[in-house]
Amino acid sequence: MCERTAAKLDETFMARAIELARLGEGKTAPNPLVGAILVKNGRVIGEGWHECFGQAHAEVNVIRNAQNLQNDPVGSTLYVTLEPCCHYGKTPPCTELIIRNRIERVVMGILDPNPMVAGRGAEALRKAGISVETGVLEEDCRRLNEIFIHFITTKRPFVTIKAAVSLDGKIAAYTGASKWISGENSRREVQLLRNSYTAVMVGVNTVLEDDPELTCRLPGGSSPLRIILDSHLRIPKTSRVLAGSDTMIACIEDVDSNTVCDLEALGATVLRCKSNEGRVDLKDLMEKLGDLGIDSILLEGGGTVNAAAFSQGIVNKLLLHMAPKILGGVSAKTFVEGLGVPSPDCAQQFRIQDVGLHGEDIRIIAYPYE
Amino acid sequence: MCERTAAKLDETFMARAIELARLGEGKTAPNPLVGAILVKNGRVIGEGWHECFGQAHAEVNVIRNAQNLQNDPVGSTLYVTLEPCCHYGKTPPCTELIIRNRIERVVMGILDPNPMVAGRGAEALRKAGISVETGVLEEDCRRLNEIFIHFITTKRPFVTIKAAVSLDGKIAAYTGASKWISGENSRREVQLLRNSYTAVMVGVNTVLEDDPELTCRLPGGSSPLRIILDSHLRIPKTSRVLAGSDTMIACIEDVDSNTVCDLEALGATVLRCKSNEGRVDLKDLMEKLGDLGIDSILLEGGGTVNAAAFSQGIVNKLLLHMAPKILGGVSAKTFVEGLGVPSPDCAQQFRIQDVGLHGEDIRIIAYPYE
Repeated sequence: MCERTAAKLDETFMARAIELARLGEGKTAPNPLVGAILVKNGRVIGEGWHECFGQAHAEVNVIRNAQNLQNDPVGSTLYVTLEPCCHYGKTPPCTELIIRNRIERVVMGILDPNPMVAGRGAEALRKAGISVETGVLEEDCRRLNEIFIHFITTKRPFVTIKAAVSLDGKIAAYTGASKWISGENSRREVQLLRNSYTAVMVGVNTVLEDDPELTCRLPGGSSPLRIILDSHLRIPKTSRVLAGSDTMIACIEDVDSNTVCDLEALGATVLRCKSNEGRVDLKDLMEKLGDLGIDSILLEGGGTVNAAAFSQGIVNKLLLHMAPKILGGVSAKTFVEGLGVPSPDCAQQFRIQDVGLHGEDIRIIAYPYE
Repeated sequence: MCERTAAKLDETFMARAIELARLGEGKTAPNPLVGAILVKNGRVIGEGWHECFGQAHAEVNVIRNAQNLQNDPVGSTLYVTLEPCCHYGKTPPCTELIIRNRIERVVMGILDPNPMVAGRGAEALRKAGISVETGVLEEDCRRLNEIFIHFITTKRPFVTIKAAVSLDGKIAAYTGASKWISGENSRREVQLLRNSYTAVMVGVNTVLEDDPELTCRLPGGSSPLRIILDSHLRIPKTSRVLAGSDTMIACIEDVDSNTVCDLEALGATVLRCKSNEGRVDLKDLMEKLGDLGIDSILLEGGGTVNAAAFSQGIVNKLLLHMAPKILGGVSAKTFVEGLGVPSPDCAQQFRIQDVGLHGEDIRIIAYPYE
């Protein structure tokens, strides 16, 4: 087989491994999503994925699956989205399992994102005489676990700004009315994200204006932790987000202690953060949230909060739902306000990862350049 | 051959006819772009297009091309993007030519947009025993001549709003700086449009702020007529757009006659229009421009002019170049301002015809629903 055909084939099998990995979505945290397949003589002889936190790794499952199907893994190629582990954790090292089953070749998407162990699994396999290839569909494999990778390497939450805008960039009409700018598909996607992100964050103005619940309304979905940016504790005690116990309120240090006590009595957690020009310092907040183990935040803020998030450099991803309508209005709000940059040369640049129609709306997924 | 394969084949040949039609771009006005191919036994035996206003129609050229290649059109199928004419104009009727050459089947993209003659060509061919099919790649064929079709059916110019915006919907930073929001590919496309549209239109504020030339800077390109919306004749006499003679200034009726004379002395044409709340009534202006034979306008206005154009219903198409950058700024301008609609339910709806990456920018082409 020519080299190019072989490379193409490797990508095809890796794409299947990625599909399998996604089957664990929402169930593996704080572990990453991992998928694996075994291929022998060009035929898939086993499939597996990490199904649930605390349970078997993808490598264990794929070998078990092959054996259940009466297929012998000896001499096969293993495609796995993430470098196999070589240490004892909740389960024995996967590298040993691979070596013991005399798998001939291992193709990996990405190395372990943990810099302390990255490359060790590959090395252990190579030492055992196994042919190892890394970096196949690397970007896709990285994106599959973008939250996990970011959190394990930075100890800070991965922040995605989500906004629904009109073709002319507005997030609401001049009256403030914003229901609904985006279409059903887009709104459903937001619900799916609220289900999969650990936390959702808004500014207190959103609470004052819309009094949202910020829950996941999907049947059987799990609601995210709710974080309210409320520098001076203006949140009304009757706000809907204060119902339930999963609400955090981020304020500056210099706030009234009685108000803090009142909010805590309602079940909320109050996080006193450093001040950045009189408002919550978002870098400091991210540090605190990271320490609390919060790995991901869906930021559904307005223009002021989003501007602060961009200017303080805490944004990792941007998801825009752009509805095919024009709202107009010189005073209608856009999704990034604040002071702004003085000229296009100084603007923050993004890499468009995906753009296209998604239901009736245009969907744009972009990443800021570091 | 099964029906579906035959239909698919018809579309493939029509797509080629559309490609050929585009070769006449910029040279056929006020005639439409038309392309044609002859197919016999599944093989293309001739290609032709309307090359230049006043010269042979596509049907004449395609038959001539087949004959030059020693191919006999008898018994062939003609694919033509537009219904063949059946009347004597600058050239004899194409229907007669088709009948005389004993072409067996004629497949058309669209019927003649002129309601006075639509369907007559097809009828003449059918009467002569020729098998006729219409509506193959109809939308593409209509889009190919969207300006021509709009102008011939309404006698008003076809208006395309073009805007370069940031991901957060801004057309300039808060300082007013707008150079450059969009990338090179996008800016080049604007130059191509200035070459192909009959006129470009801006508001006087753009003249006051940027003093643009509004010419086509492509080598060998032809510059459009420049129309300035200047209700109260505030344009400085030293403005660059007043250099050259192809400038029209649209004002309301109640302006100072001396100023009109001064501007006319500089070579500009002053169009006094009805007033719409103290500003140029755009419907009235379109009527006047249509009467002057202006078939197309590229509207490169700011948010105020665009809002007026949308609310007065003169917009036919929207072309957005969206750069992957965030400008922010609560006071930065968006491409549609004005009063705006009070709620998303009342917003003008669009049909997205195309969206995707175009160079470094996202390009969106949309049409308002009627």
